[in-house]
Amino acid sequence: MNSSFFSDMLQTIADRGRALIARDRRSPTEQSSANLVELCDQLLSGRGEASGVALASEILAHYAEATSGARVALFESLASKFGPDHGRLGAAIEAWRASPTDVTAAAVHLAAEPRRQELLRRLNLAPGGTAALVRMREHLIDALERRADLAPVDRDFVHMFSSWFNRGFLVLRRIDWSTPASVLERIIRYEAVHRINGWDDLRRRIDPPDRRCYAFFHPALVDDPLIFVEVALTREIPGAIDPILAAQDEPLQKQQATTAVFYSISNCQRGLAGVSFGNFLIKQVAEEIAREHPKLARFVTLSPVPGFAAWLRRERAVENSPTFKPEERAVLSKLDSPGWWRNDPLPLKEPLLRAATWYFLNAKTRNGAPLDPVARFHLGNGARLEQINWLADTSERGIAQSYGVMVNYLYELDDIEANHEAYAQQRTVVASSAVTRLMRTPAAKLASLF
Amino acid sequence: MNSSFFSDMLQTIADRGRALIARDRRSPTEQSSANLVELCDQLLSGRGEASGVALASEILAHYAEATSGARVALFESLASKFGPDHGRLGAAIEAWRASPTDVTAAAVHLAAEPRRQELLRRLNLAPGGTAALVRMREHLIDALERRADLAPVDRDFVHMFSSWFNRGFLVLRRIDWSTPASVLERIIRYEAVHRINGWDDLRRRIDPPDRRCYAFFHPALVDDPLIFVEVALTREIPGAIDPILAAQDEPLQKQQATTAVFYSISNCQRGLAGVSFGNFLIKQVAEEIAREHPKLARFVTLSPVPGFAAWLRRERAVENSPTFKPEERAVLSKLDSPGWWRNDPLPLKEPLLRAATWYFLNAKTRNGAPLDPVARFHLGNGARLEQINWLADTSERGIAQSYGVMVNYLYELDDIEANHEAYAQQRTVVASSAVTRLMRTPAAKLASLF
Amino acid sequence: MNSSFFSDMLQTIADRGRALIARDRRSPTEQSSANLVELCDQLLSGRGEASGVALASEILAHYAEATSGARVALFESLASKFGPDHGRLGAAIEAWRASPTDVTAAAVHLAAEPRRQELLRRLNLAPGGTAALVRMREHLIDALERRADLAPVDRDFVHMFSSWFNRGFLVLRRIDWSTPASVLERIIRYEAVHRINGWDDLRRRIDPPDRRCYAFFHPALVDDPLIFVEVALTREIPGAIDPILAAQDEPLQKQQATTAVFYSISNCQRGLAGVSFGNFLIKQVAEEIAREHPKLARFVTLSPVPGFAAWLRRERAVENSPTFKPEERAVLSKLDSPGWWRNDPLPLKEPLLRAATWYFLNAKTRNGAPLDPVARFHLGNGARLEQINWLADTSERGIAQSYGVMVNYLYELDDIEANHEAYAQQRTVVASSAVTRLMRTPAAKLASLF
Amino acid sequence: MNSSFFSDMLQTIADRGRALIARDRRSPTEQSSANLVELCDQLLSGRGEASGVALASEILAHYAEATSGARVALFESLASKFGPDHGRLGAAIEAWRASPTDVTAAAVHLAAEPRRQELLRRLNLAPGGTAALVRMREHLIDALERRADLAPVDRDFVHMFSSWFNRGFLVLRRIDWSTPASVLERIIRYEAVHRINGWDDLRRRIDPPDRRCYAFFHPALVDDPLIFVEVALTREIPGAIDPILAAQDEPLQKQQATTAVFYSISNCQRGLAGVSFGNFLIKQVAEEIAREHPKLARFVTLSPVPGFAAWLRRERAVENSPTFKPEERAVLSKLDSPGWWRNDPLPLKEPLLRAATWYFLNAKTRNGAPLDPVARFHLGNGARLEQINWLADTSERGIAQSYGVMVNYLYELDDIEANHEAYAQQRTVVASSAVTRLMRTPAAKLASLF
Repeated sequence: MNSSFFSDMLQTIADRGRALIARDRRSPTEQSSANLVELCDQLLSGRGEASGVALASEILAHYAEATSGARVALFESLASKFGPDHGRLGAAIEAWRASPTDVTAAAVHLAAEPRRQELLRRLNLAPGGTAALVRMREHLIDALERRADLAPVDRDFVHMFSSWFNRGFLVLRRIDWSTPASVLERIIRYEAVHRINGWDDLRRRIDPPDRRCYAFFHPALVDDPLIFVEVALTREIPGAIDPILAAQDEPLQKQQATTAVFYSISNCQRGLAGVSFGNFLIKQVAEEIAREHPKLARFVTLSPVPGFAAWLRRERAVENSPTFKPEERAVLSKLDSPGWWRNDPLPLKEPLLRAATWYFLNAKTRNGAPLDPVARFHLGNGARLEQINWLADTSERGIAQSYGVMVNYLYELDDIEANHEAYAQQRTVVASSAVTRLMRTPAAKLASLF
Repeated sequence: MNSSFFSDMLQTIADRGRALIARDRRSPTEQSSANLVELCDQLLSGRGEASGVALASEILAHYAEATSGARVALFESLASKFGPDHGRLGAAIEAWRASPTDVTAAAVHLAAEPRRQELLRRLNLAPGGTAALVRMREHLIDALERRADLAPVDRDFVHMFSSWFNRGFLVLRRIDWSTPASVLERIIRYEAVHRINGWDDLRRRIDPPDRRCYAFFHPALVDDPLIFVEVALTREIPGAIDPILAAQDEPLQKQQATTAVFYSISNCQRGLAGVSFGNFLIKQVAEEIAREHPKLARFVTLSPVPGFAAWLRRERAVENSPTFKPEERAVLSKLDSPGWWRNDPLPLKEPLLRAATWYFLNAKTRNGAPLDPVARFHLGNGARLEQINWLADTSERGIAQSYGVMVNYLYELDDIEANHEAYAQQRTVVASSAVTRLMRTPAAKLASLF
Repeated sequence: MNSSFFSDMLQTIADRGRALIARDRRSPTEQSSANLVELCDQLLSGRGEASGVALASEILAHYAEATSGARVALFESLASKFGPDHGRLGAAIEAWRASPTDVTAAAVHLAAEPRRQELLRRLNLAPGGTAALVRMREHLIDALERRADLAPVDRDFVHMFSSWFNRGFLVLRRIDWSTPASVLERIIRYEAVHRINGWDDLRRRIDPPDRRCYAFFHPALVDDPLIFVEVALTREIPGAIDPILAAQDEPLQKQQATTAVFYSISNCQRGLAGVSFGNFLIKQVAEEIAREHPKLARFVTLSPVPGFAAWLRRERAVENSPTFKPEERAVLSKLDSPGWWRNDPLPLKEPLLRAATWYFLNAKTRNGAPLDPVARFHLGNGARLEQINWLADTSERGIAQSYGVMVNYLYELDDIEANHEAYAQQRTVVASSAVTRLMRTPAAKLASLF
Repeated sequence: MNSSFFSDMLQTIADRGRALIARDRRSPTEQSSANLVELCDQLLSGRGEASGVALASEILAHYAEATSGARVALFESLASKFGPDHGRLGAAIEAWRASPTDVTAAAVHLAAEPRRQELLRRLNLAPGGTAALVRMREHLIDALERRADLAPVDRDFVHMFSSWFNRGFLVLRRIDWSTPASVLERIIRYEAVHRINGWDDLRRRIDPPDRRCYAFFHPALVDDPLIFVEVALTREIPGAIDPILAAQDEPLQKQQATTAVFYSISNCQRGLAGVSFGNFLIKQVAEEIAREHPKLARFVTLSPVPGFAAWLRRERAVENSPTFKPEERAVLSKLDSPGWWRNDPLPLKEPLLRAATWYFLNAKTRNGAPLDPVARFHLGNGARLEQINWLADTSERGIAQSYGVMVNYLYELDDIEANHEAYAQQRTVVASSAVTRLMRTPAAKLASLF
């Protein structure tokens, strides 16, 4: 009830963060990376926390002003100079070999820790430190593309972030039309799946009674969401995205909805790549919606199939691929003519759906997981492949990456655990009978299935 | 401004926490520790997060119901069965010895990590997990007294807590008469230095215009403070505690105060022992008060001297101790008679003050730090020993632990850094000239100094 | 969701109010009432709002410093000098008589308005003005006791307050253990029916899962409640107050409760006497609880019978009163011996219950309403007299005012409207058949009824 | 600090309001006005509050569904049937004439009150009643245009609103980029002076460090502002509007600003026309900004001159008008050619500025006030006419209504009271010496003055 007491808490964090940013602006002197590395050395060697916080703030302020070159130079130093202390590690290892106990193992553990981990911990003590380190990792990720030698630094960032962005510290908030504009603006910017075209489009997605949007926040980032999901309440499992994104004349009333459709999930912080929140988000949102609408019967996604078109092109180049019957291969060649879906596409339906089914059930990565990344995510969460939809997304991107195919994954609360275990243990792709039947269906009957 | 958005966040966490507690009540079946260990094994071996959260919740719920014996048995298992995997560690070490690079060192680091660290991380994923783990550590600390073999488990708890209770996630809140009663009740309970006698006494400490109280909170514990400090605004550096605790007829008005006195700091969470917040708290509160009262000239403490009486008794037993002149030793023997301070104590003033000065400047631990723990804390923070006060705390405890002596530590913003470094590097005890002069003062003049 | 936006609003009002109080303190010069009246004249004659607010603030500040004598002198002036302008009224009346239209009537209306009404409106423009005027009326009520000539002034206060404390501006808040201490302190102080003995007693009334407390607040008084009600959730309609007030070993769980008992309603602001909130409060709280506990079957009060003992004493003095049978009158004389209820009281049960029934059904005021004021309140709200309880309140006050009798009024949602109308039209006392049967019951059978 | 307690209050009101609106939707049956009048009669005749609230809600729900014709019919009934009771008034007047005391005058006052005032009070008891009545008055204002006979009804609305929207209940809130989108959307919609072109334009006006926006809210309307003002912080008194509305490359930092410019004030609620808030708003915002920026030296407006062009056209038609010298009249004729300001306008500067000065100082309404409505508002508030600006607003509207002229009014805290009184008593137009000098300046020198 008296939430303001706790609200003020977070406000305080926000103010601190802004103070840091303001300070950045005030110190516009260019700093050499040499200087940065030196300061980092000082920070690590200092024994007390008292001066440490000030030093950490100074480092982050300098970093914020640094050029791209100076940043990469800092990352290089982190990789080369702030690894483990091999001398100390050698000694600890000798001690363990002499007497391999938990105590000597603990010493080995400590000695083997890259020194940059402690550096990150101390930088995090600065006001606004967490946000600054997330931004730093964005730069690191960019640098990684050409500098594989920085990968160990990146692993340490992920290790620290996993601890700090522990699920226990995430907070789920509903996003609606009474959310502060500063947050909504970020939602518009971060939407990664189905682009939001300005404030009116945003409002269509969060304000009507049959739309929901939820995001995870973290106290240290305050008004900057980590991940969010958009949901539509519908009567049926939807087979296409356009009706969901379009302006509606008459929204569904609460009691008319039977199905919650998760049609877009966007990660917001590039700097937190590799720290996963989506699994928790979907389940917590499903609980939230179920509490509010006890009569909702189904939770499904309407998901893209990002790897399908590329895979299919490759498959079609393979002679004697078991994916198609010979006659299908010919039909599928129509896919190469631009705008094919506007021009009598029906003959393509069967072969395309059958190919997609094959893609989901049989196309695997080297370690046996499904080739499709979105499939890996939802199946790993315990969802089931429920339905494959033809001409479901005819946007430019939809055609380009999946020949318009979209799928629904079903989150059935009673089965999630079992599905998840089956997938985790044996990479089993759990699919509805409608989908598996597709594989066995004589071409003639296929068309009537969906 | 729109803090409610973020307030609701924390409210959400609070609700989750309560939900967990509520669930505990609902599952009253007694659980054996064997069962607990088995569940922990399952939790560690599980690959996916999906079932992990449910399992973690179940473990914490069972733990909450467990008997004291079952708890200790769990801790034993954590110590003996959830240490590092020595086989894996041996292999990693061989690889490092064959090729001692950062990459093989990283593998060693990973292999040397006690498995219980990952266990704690996974338990923390349960709703209310952090609070439950803090409670678990309280039990562990109790068990530690007779079970030194559990120390490695405790170190891992401290390691995890240091990361989770990172200073960047702490929030400073003022505590006053408009604070929720549920928080105030805890302040009464947690006050460890000068006991609060009920709500009227509490109000005297937080409501008048010349009193302040601030606490650190953490999002995962919501309305349960981590540490708090009580402050009095005064005209002078106070030489005794009673005038500060007594009911005042007329509180000081804002513009009359020149000095902020930190007269009580209490840690609230026994389960977080070893994770230090006090240093940050004092500095942040000083900043807060300075912002509000730009004319305040001084920030001092009025602190107990917990080790003084015990040390003095030991010193008096040492023949030829350099601490006293022979004639002083005789006078000090009066301290052994009960109620000495009520009965012409003046002749004791000089020798006692001189002994106290000696205690602060010369009595050291084995590694060269001051013997007094409170002195170590404030000097380590960069404060200076400013004033030693005679008959400053004549409560039973005050007489018993320090013959009534209290001291003021001064936090002078401009000197904090230098003082801290001097202490951190060479264990220098920075003291005011008034204090150091005490050591050199002819007895006759001493009395007039304070 | 984003309630903080609106929370800050009210915070702003609170700050203003405090600023006013602070200002009062700063102007300690004693002000004569002559001066006050003069300032009021200025305030009324001023044309613009600009200077008006400052003037209103000044008047209220002076008033806050005024002696009791000066206050009464001000009230006298309000009565004698700030009534309607009879000259202007005479002219308006002549105009109406010449042409009795709505337009001339409006002019009469305006001219007949006592000038002090406009004065109160302008005083209310000062920051904190509403609260100051509520305090002013407290003084006026005190003065009224000996000064009936001030009654018209009082009527104008009530007229203004009825508009400002319009039900539409009242806000219902739950009071629980997370409510700010500053509010809880007032709840302790304002409880008028069953005294709250300190904070532990308070907690017993608001914190357990089977207790509720709700209050109405008004934006202009911020953290000062207008009225509050205490509720117990029980399995049965309670027949006595002690079990409800006592510490409970085991509170009822939510799903076990069938009955909500309103056992105490307290008006908080003496200065708002005559502006009624209780009716709205009971109904809104009943709705609130019903929403939270859809299975609750009954809403009843456990109410005092403040006029019963005095009436019974008078009745017993009346010869041939139809209230008793002759043999009962003799039995009832036992009531005159102190401590009668501790000493074989059973023979008194029948006659006392029958007398109470008679009191409720037949004892009337001059205009035909029930003699009992609490009965008038609940019956007027549409409740029904459900049950009369013997030895239900044996506190000193309970015995003194009602020989220990308490009653339950039942709020049956479906009947409220009809009951209310029956009472409003014909002063019908709607009572349960159990109560009405009491009147007709042979003495012998009565005892078994309750 | 614990503002959430009070925040929840307003949230509650908001919920109620939405509940009412929701209910409206659910009862789509068309209601005749006859029915409405009948229900109003019932509401007035009912004695108890119990059924009254339900009845009031029903009336407002029916009203919300009513056609425009039915609404006007209701207003007619309010005018004709719900005026004062002339019979009762006649009796009261006779009593007063027999004995003209305050008591009989009070009876006259009561009897002369139009019955619709009590009706409005009772309607206001419905949840969401205040907002519904504000909407009802919007309809009434529309109807008034052709139905002067409804004016008395309108006066009663204003009378009630003046009491309910008492300044003491208004809350000032800063509007910025963290304000809920639902509020910001209304700011865009309500801006009446310088149109806001979408969300990006809005952000330019509220987010930069040298821009401010504040609004008054009322608890009963929750997230719907009553009036708001836009402010720019600048170095100089601005002489034109475009630089303020344009996107800025580099906003002013806090310490650089010397002047706060109120460049737009918009009333939001058409239904509250006649209840004035602007005076309070400007002064409270000035205080707020002064608290935040103690070094700000000046508070000025940049205001339109809506009546100037029309007046000047009339003046130019008057032969021998003292407003111009003969040669000026010829020059001013250039104003009639479209786009005159783009085509060597300089010769117009002198005569136009002199004419504007004359307009402000000498052009009066019948009762002696300045002809310009904006001038009346600011001069009435105690501001001073500080500067007249040439080609300050070349928007279509700016040219059309004032030939591009804008003025600055200066709010000098020390002079406000005196200016206000001078204006209130003698309609004195207080103007800076720069302005008054304009009147006396030889044409040749005028150009260099501004």
